[in-house]
Formats: sequence, structure tokens, C-alpha cells
Amino acid sequence: MKHKNITLAHGSGGKLTHELVRKLFLPCFNNTALSFLGDSAILNINGTKLAFTTDSYVVKPLFFPGGDIGRLAVSGTINDLAVVGAEPMFLSAGFIIEEGFDMALLEKIVKSMKETISFTGVDIVTGDTKVVERGGADGLYINTCGIGIVNDGINLSTSSIETGDKIIISGTIGDHGMAVLSERESLGFTPSIKSDCAPLSGMIKKILASGAHIKFMRDPTRGGLATTLNEIVNTQKYGIVIEEQAIPVNDGVRALCEILGYDPLYIANEGKVVIVVSAHDAVKVCNILKEDSLSKDAAIIGEVIPEPAGKVCLKTVIGGTRIIDMLVGDQLPRIC
Amino acid sequence: MKHKNITLAHGSGGKLTHELVRKLFLPCFNNTALSFLGDSAILNINGTKLAFTTDSYVVKPLFFPGGDIGRLAVSGTINDLAVVGAEPMFLSAGFIIEEGFDMALLEKIVKSMKETISFTGVDIVTGDTKVVERGGADGLYINTCGIGIVNDGINLSTSSIETGDKIIISGTIGDHGMAVLSERESLGFTPSIKSDCAPLSGMIKKILASGAHIKFMRDPTRGGLATTLNEIVNTQKYGIVIEEQAIPVNDGVRALCEILGYDPLYIANEGKVVIVVSAHDAVKVCNILKEDSLSKDAAIIGEVIPEPAGKVCLKTVIGGTRIIDMLVGDQLPRIC
Repeated sequence: MKHKNITLAHGSGGKLTHELVRKLFLPCFNNTALSFLGDSAILNINGTKLAFTTDSYVVKPLFFPGGDIGRLAVSGTINDLAVVGAEPMFLSAGFIIEEGFDMALLEKIVKSMKETISFTGVDIVTGDTKVVERGGADGLYINTCGIGIVNDGINLSTSSIETGDKIIISGTIGDHGMAVLSERESLGFTPSIKSDCAPLSGMIKKILASGAHIKFMRDPTRGGLATTLNEIVNTQKYGIVIEEQAIPVNDGVRALCEILGYDPLYIANEGKVVIVVSAHDAVKVCNILKEDSLSKDAAIIGEVIPEPAGKVCLKTVIGGTRIIDMLVGDQLPRIC
Repeated sequence: MKHKNITLAHGSGGKLTHELVRKLFLPCFNNTALSFLGDSAILNINGTKLAFTTDSYVVKPLFFPGGDIGRLAVSGTINDLAVVGAEPMFLSAGFIIEEGFDMALLEKIVKSMKETISFTGVDIVTGDTKVVERGGADGLYINTCGIGIVNDGINLSTSSIETGDKIIISGTIGDHGMAVLSERESLGFTPSIKSDCAPLSGMIKKILASGAHIKFMRDPTRGGLATTLNEIVNTQKYGIVIEEQAIPVNDGVRALCEILGYDPLYIANEGKVVIVVSAHDAVKVCNILKEDSLSKDAAIIGEVIPEPAGKVCLKTVIGGTRIIDMLVGDQLPRIC
């Protein structure tokens, strides 16, 4: 390992996170189902295909425009199940709370978790509470794990991706990261920028049921759209090209990114999904998405190309083409 | 809720933890499988009975005689699956790491996790890493979730417990809590006191396979043996009586408890199980346990009685009887 100590970038979801996973976790916990880099592990239990995933949430601040750590913790894990084609069923909730934490805030967060799952068919069935002394945590951290069932006939994998397949993003990018940053730094942009944090299982169920040939899905959280697209092409025999002007970005997010020097391509989303779909079905899937309020701004933003393999290219608005890499360093720590 | 702010005792596993669960989590996340107070939720997935559990580990210090946070994090979750009669299969691992944490220590902990699961048949199949700034966590916290299969014919429940059933403890009590305390306070008792932290699934499989009529099991972790026995009798129409002199306690643990004024009955264990078994099979189960190195000091320590219902009584060495309650407050925060 290059670093002798853990840095914030090891938790960024970008290059150093990948290095940690590849050099430490994967060799050590070596097994076929292992999915530190995927969204969920796929397990075979007595003939049933089960998806299993975990995420810890350390977002700061705990409340932000459009959501809170509770809504985030259940949405994120539901989405990690949904993007592998699973129907989310059961969640766990593990709370690590700092001594002195306001009980009324805890109640508000727990109620937000309940409200967020209320229309998803998901139950929180097991939990745990630990309390650490003042200074031992920053208010509250939540871990959620999720279990879902992958129905017969669903088999999403990067290995079925072919040249010509289209790339869809289900809506505007960067909303979550910019909403959290705006709240954290008290920038006063809050009215126009809201986190997109939401459970996407209902919307994903619709497109899976449509019969469209969906090859692969992933939610572009930490590291943003750019990192997710790189994860898709990484070590593959194909690349991806996306068109800058086709990527939906809210005006407020665009403005704040410009002012602060951020690139929306690297900003975290918590209610969006990247879909790789056969060219034939791309418009159909996009139209289904547009009917759902969570994905009304869905757009086809690019396609799978043979060269350069393993790379993501961006055609810029002014006509240039540049290669976009995974997130390096960490622009925005503790975004989820 | 009586308290306006979270106290360390809310994470003790004792009375305030139960209040938090009963007054906040249970009403909010209301569903039949919910097991905040049990060891694992039991779920029916396409006809397969699945056990699902979660625990966060915040033990301080991270290394202690007999184990470390990694060994603890996998053992604890494996044990929560095993005591509901499930065969542990898959674990998740979620790391919350403080910026600056020593990479070599992280590697040591991850390798300890791997070593601990190596003979259990359990795989770590999914994970997550978050990094928080200096001061945002105390080194490292680990959350693990576990999935296990409950085989046909196994149905452990407090509802099958009857008067006359025997209570077995699988070995000496208080070792884990006293080992951690001793290390934390640098008391220098370390040579004689070691944590019992270990995965018990192999040992439990043997007694389940013996055909003995085992009614219920639970691992007496936070809150110790006294709290676990109280959880078993709580709101039931029976009570439990245990004999003080039958309870195995290591000399070192007994001595340290006496010096510091702790009661071993309330000290956490991480490699022990409380078993409620029919009177007819008690000796048989105890003998099977004694053949396993992890339970060589197993003992029948008491029995189920009709009165006083809902209470745990202790017959003391000098012949008296007193009622022992759940843990109140928190004697030893961050023991697991």
C-alpha cells in the first residue's frame, strides 16, 4: 500500500478506495461472491438468488435540503440492491451514537427512515445501538445492510455489454453532493439545491418489467458519474463516450460548481441510476423513466464504443474530446 | 423517553437500551420479524428460513488479550446467527475509519477477521469503507451483518420453555469484559485474563445435531449473564433460578472483579452461550460441550421455575436467595 496511514481519500469511493479494496480486502476475504467493488453480492441460497449489501453513512451535516442521514441510509442500501436487479426486502439498521446526542433528533431521524421505506415494501427487521463517549463519533453514524431477491431471468452484468449499447442517466447529476456541501458551509444556496436522495426500487422495477434489454445498472454515488462510468469500463474490452451537453444538470448545481470549482461529473448522487441498455431499447427505457417523478429528467447521454478500451471519453460542448478518469483524492468528504 | 439526550447507558445492552428499543425502534419499524431485542431476525425467503442480524463494534482498545476488534466483529455476528439455530453463511463488513489510522493496524485487523472465519465455513461477501476526519471516530469502528440458514426442524423459542428445563452456561463468565478493561486501564492482569471472543457455530452445531431438546439459546454479551437470563424470563409465566456456586468463573476474573467491585454476572462474554434445555437432555448436552475446547467448562447452573414468574433468582454460596435484575447504567462502556 502506498500510504502508511488512512487518508480521507481512502473513503472517497475513488482511486484510493479502489486500491484499499484491491490490495487489502479482496486478497484477504477472497471468495467468488465478494462485492466490495460491486453494489451487492449475489448469493445462491437453496436455489434463490439473493442480493446482499452494506453501507455505513457518516454524512455531515445530519440534516440537509432534501433529506437527512436516516433517509439517506435506507435509500442508499435499497438502491444498491435495486441496481443489481434485486427486489429489496429486508434492511438492518446499526446506530453508533455519540453520548449526549439529542433524543429528539434521533427520533426525527428514525421516523424519516420509516417514512422513506413506507412505500417500498421493505422492512427494517434487525438492529443494533452502540453509544460512544463525547468525541468518539460526530453525532451519529448509521450502517444499513440489505437483502433482496433477484427474480428469475434477471442477470445484469458488465460482461453482456456490447459496442453500440446506450448509456442512460435517470436525471440531473450532482444534486446530493452540492446540497450537502451547501448546507455544511452555510452557503445559502439551499432553496434551489436539494438532495435527490430517494429509494429507486419502484422506478427500477418498472424498467426491468418492460422487457427492455438492460445490460447493467449502477448508482453513481461517491465519486459521481465519472467514477461510476470508469468502474463499468475498467479492465473491459470496450470504452464509453458521453456527450457533455446531453448530461442533465440543475442550474443551481451548475452555478455552485462553477463558483467553487467543482466538476458535477464527480459529485455524489443518491437518487440516480446509470443504465446500460441495448441501442434498440434505449428510447423506450428513457420514456418509461420520464413518467416517474424521480427520473423525469432521464436522458441518453452516450454509448459504448470499441476504442479506447477501458476508458471514458467526454465530448465537450465546444466539440473537443477528453478522457475522464476516476475521482482522485476526495473533493467532498462525508457526503454519504 | 425519560432522557432528553443519549447516555452511555443507552448502549449498555441493559435497561436503557431496552427502553430505547421498546419506545422508539419497535413502534417505528413495526413488523413481525423485527428483532432489535432478539439475536437475529428470522425471515422466510421462498420457503427457506433465513436468519439476519447486525452489530456494530466500537470496542476500546482495538487490541486486547485474546482478541481484537476484527476477531470480535466476526465472532459476535456469527454467534448471533448460531444461537438462533442458524448455520452462518455470509457476512458483510463495514469499516468507519478515522483519518490518520495506521494502515499496518488495519491490515492486522482485517487478517484477524479472515483467520477467525477460516474454519467456520463463513465468507465475507460484501463491504464498505468510510473515512471520517481526525476526531470523528476513535480509530476504527466495524459493523458486520450476517446471514444464516435455519435448517428444517429447528425452532428455538422462549415459548417452548417449561418449568423444570435446565440452564447451561457453556463456560466461565466475565472473561471478555475483564480482559478489555484490564487492557484499557493497563492494570497488568493481562497474563491471567483473556477474552473468550470466538465463533461458536461449530460447537452449537454439535449440540443441535445431538437430538437433545434444546429450547432456546442466547449469547450473554453486553449486560452479561444476568441481563441475558432476564431477557429470557421477561414477561413470561416462568422464572429462572441459578446457583451461584455452579457458575464457572476464572480465578483471575473473580479476583479482578472483587478488587474493582464488579459483579461477573453483569460482565460481557463474547464466546459463551446460555442454553435452555429439557431436564432429560441437560447432562448429555453438557457432556458434548465439555469435549469442545471452547466450552470445556460448561456447567448446568440452574433451572426454570414457576415462581416468581418473570424474575431471575440467585441462590448465593452462603445459602441466601436474591433477585437479580437486568444491568442498570453501564459499568463498562465500549466493551464490544
